[in-house]
Amino acid sequence: MEAKTVSYSKTIMSQIVLPEQANPAGNIHGGEIMKMMDNTAYVVARKHCRTNVVTARVDELEFYQPVVVGQLVTCKGQLVFVGRSSMEVLVQVEVEDLSSDQPPIVALKAFFTMVALDENCRPVEVPRLILETEEEKRAFEDGKKRYQTYKRRRQKRT
Amino acid sequence: MEAKTVSYSKTIMSQIVLPEQANPAGNIHGGEIMKMMDNTAYVVARKHCRTNVVTARVDELEFYQPVVVGQLVTCKGQLVFVGRSSMEVLVQVEVEDLSSDQPPIVALKAFFTMVALDENCRPVEVPRLILETEEEKRAFEDGKKRYQTYKRRRQKRT
Amino acid sequence: MEAKTVSYSKTIMSQIVLPEQANPAGNIHGGEIMKMMDNTAYVVARKHCRTNVVTARVDELEFYQPVVVGQLVTCKGQLVFVGRSSMEVLVQVEVEDLSSDQPPIVALKAFFTMVALDENCRPVEVPRLILETEEEKRAFEDGKKRYQTYKRRRQKRT
Amino acid sequence: MEAKTVSYSKTIMSQIVLPEQANPAGNIHGGEIMKMMDNTAYVVARKHCRTNVVTARVDELEFYQPVVVGQLVTCKGQLVFVGRSSMEVLVQVEVEDLSSDQPPIVALKAFFTMVALDENCRPVEVPRLILETEEEKRAFEDGKKRYQTYKRRRQKRT
Amino acid sequence: MEAKTVSYSKTIMSQIVLPEQANPAGNIHGGEIMKMMDNTAYVVARKHCRTNVVTARVDELEFYQPVVVGQLVTCKGQLVFVGRSSMEVLVQVEVEDLSSDQPPIVALKAFFTMVALDENCRPVEVPRLILETEEEKRAFEDGKKRYQTYKRRRQKRT
Amino acid sequence: MEAKTVSYSKTIMSQIVLPEQANPAGNIHGGEIMKMMDNTAYVVARKHCRTNVVTARVDELEFYQPVVVGQLVTCKGQLVFVGRSSMEVLVQVEVEDLSSDQPPIVALKAFFTMVALDENCRPVEVPRLILETEEEKRAFEDGKKRYQTYKRRRQKRT
Repeated sequence: MEAKTVSYSKTIMSQIVLPEQANPAGNIHGGEIMKMMDNTAYVVARKHCRTNVVTARVDELEFYQPVVVGQLVTCKGQLVFVGRSSMEVLVQVEVEDLSSDQPPIVALKAFFTMVALDENCRPVEVPRLILETEEEKRAFEDGKKRYQTYKRRRQKRT
Repeated sequence: MEAKTVSYSKTIMSQIVLPEQANPAGNIHGGEIMKMMDNTAYVVARKHCRTNVVTARVDELEFYQPVVVGQLVTCKGQLVFVGRSSMEVLVQVEVEDLSSDQPPIVALKAFFTMVALDENCRPVEVPRLILETEEEKRAFEDGKKRYQTYKRRRQKRT
Repeated sequence: MEAKTVSYSKTIMSQIVLPEQANPAGNIHGGEIMKMMDNTAYVVARKHCRTNVVTARVDELEFYQPVVVGQLVTCKGQLVFVGRSSMEVLVQVEVEDLSSDQPPIVALKAFFTMVALDENCRPVEVPRLILETEEEKRAFEDGKKRYQTYKRRRQKRT
Repeated sequence: MEAKTVSYSKTIMSQIVLPEQANPAGNIHGGEIMKMMDNTAYVVARKHCRTNVVTARVDELEFYQPVVVGQLVTCKGQLVFVGRSSMEVLVQVEVEDLSSDQPPIVALKAFFTMVALDENCRPVEVPRLILETEEEKRAFEDGKKRYQTYKRRRQKRT
Repeated sequence: MEAKTVSYSKTIMSQIVLPEQANPAGNIHGGEIMKMMDNTAYVVARKHCRTNVVTARVDELEFYQPVVVGQLVTCKGQLVFVGRSSMEVLVQVEVEDLSSDQPPIVALKAFFTMVALDENCRPVEVPRLILETEEEKRAFEDGKKRYQTYKRRRQKRT
Repeated sequence: MEAKTVSYSKTIMSQIVLPEQANPAGNIHGGEIMKMMDNTAYVVARKHCRTNVVTARVDELEFYQPVVVGQLVTCKGQLVFVGRSSMEVLVQVEVEDLSSDQPPIVALKAFFTMVALDENCRPVEVPRLILETEEEKRAFEDGKKRYQTYKRRRQKRT
């Protein structure tokens, strides 16, 4: 199984916020954005491992910025850390008003942990991640720490 | 503004998983479940404060259990902690197979922090929460700790 | 095949009315509510018999109350009568305004007759219904009368 | 207000059954068909009165024929009876298999009672119905009887 | 394989424009109308050949008329030309305001070329077209010219 | 009104093909892809002019490549030509199989002509286009010729 770079699976997905995705006051439901983010994480993870993948956990999801009907929402996803069968994807959400010249702003970001599965729904090994920049290496180390914390917590529970 | 009990805003929402909500292997996309959970948290928070509300953050979202097409997904939401304008809602997701007699099992749970807004999108005070059981009181204290941790983190950033 | 109680299959499903479900004047299309009611009847019937089920008829569907965008619609379904392969489900619809403290009001109710099918789409026997209260017994007798009326009518046609 | 013929508001609406509209066994949910029928009744009624209209009741909804994914469903709606502010629409549903040369068959039919409303949601008078054929006249008389039965029943309740 | 008339596969499909299909100014997105037109062309082509069909090209798609939320859009499709495995369908779109007595007007039309496929996704022969009127014969000749032009162009490319 | 570069409004939008977007044989309906393309053209045009825009025409829409359920569809849109109030956008569609390492391939492309409108739905002037490369200049000249051809044709009709 060939190792792959971070940029190999980088993914950008955009969508215009529709009235049906917002509450009566015109604010997009947080759940609609989470769905778009998860969708992006899904594509990133599948591009890396080319098998079935499911979402295992989501961390540090915090909304900095309200998003309203008619805006363009862009999700940018890239791999941060890769374990044996789990892949951590950072998804950043940028929001842009189509009726003004203002540049897009970051509305939120979060880490999605995706797990690769075989046809019997058992975790399966994924390709290693080739780290090309200093930033990628630092992010990988941070991801590794989060990964080990979750693992310890889960072992305590059982 | 009259204080309200936890049971006043308790909410149950159910849905059958459709093929369009799942990946080619039949597993529901994590984002679809997050959207349902957020929807439940939205209703709980609105019932408590009766103003516009938005999602501010989501914590400890971990999937214990794969969910597949045709299953009945039930989200149960209830208030855990209430600050000045923020409300923390615990959302539990139960999954049930309609073709067997097995009882529903908990597939995941998470804490959603919702913020009440006035017409100008500024945070607005919400009713206090009446705690009726020992369990509600304990959960409230845990929620308060999480609330203070997030607050400190946000202040550090700025 | 084990008999089951009414409460075993009781089901509650909620949803917020979206703009796309309403006409330009903001009133929800009757068809959207019927779809939600049918969905609830489907879950009730499947929980009782655990086989494939289809809708056979709908009776006494009368709207008492307009329903508008942004309201929370809650469908409560429970078995009333069970024949050899048919199940009559009473579905009640409650409507609640999320921006006020008014309690929910009943907007309409109707009887859905569902039929259990095997893999070849032929009617299949369903479990008997255990009646635990006087109210359940009275409702069952009324359901039986409706059932016999429909049967006679169908026989006349053929 | 000018009287209008039955054919003036006659409406035909078609749709292919999608996987998301069916249960796991491939049968369309009854609620999806009711939604299409109600949609057709809504268009017929609006064409006749050109004001806001809502569904008031549905009668004699009986499914003769299972409908499955991939079939073409065609709803044909026409006015049967017109009262002061209420309009009874007969909606017939034909089903056709696109992969065979078989002619379409009638899967079900039902009567939808629609009510015309003004801007304040109060019932408003609708144009009279011009009856051009013997069949239309007979159907009108039958509709009138149903109308009077419902009216009596409602008066008894209050 | 029996030849079929133009009227055999003629198809009419209607839909009310929903808020979710329009931009913030209330104009329906062109893509929503194209989707409805393609859907109509798909039904026409499938009725003629009764095999799997896909869209191969679209020509002369020009919007004469803005379409807005709440209007009734009716697509009328009929075969114009039939080659060995390709079928050209003319789709006309009429728009009607449900709140006024104005007759519907043509908002746009276009030619859709559909190709019949067998189970292995290879082009398959379709029934000949029986031309019954002078207008159908003239339209067929025009369609034939377009067909030959596209063919030549494609051959040049390869 | 400040002129803008081609790259200023360049837009990429991705989506996974869902079962509901495909025919029973698993091929995406052409209309679904046209809708995605139109959506991309809409965003490109709005970014350039920042006013309301509508689709005026679509040209040379030809499908080279079948698209099936589960694939990732990516629409890349950029301005080619700008008239007084009309903008021609080239939209290219790439298709990628998420379960294999094959690079994406171009499935189709087409030219969308969008028109900028003011609040009264009248055409309004748009910013000029800054052409930075030889390729952009050549494409602009080709777009200008198409633009003049359509204009002549429309004048003949009236």
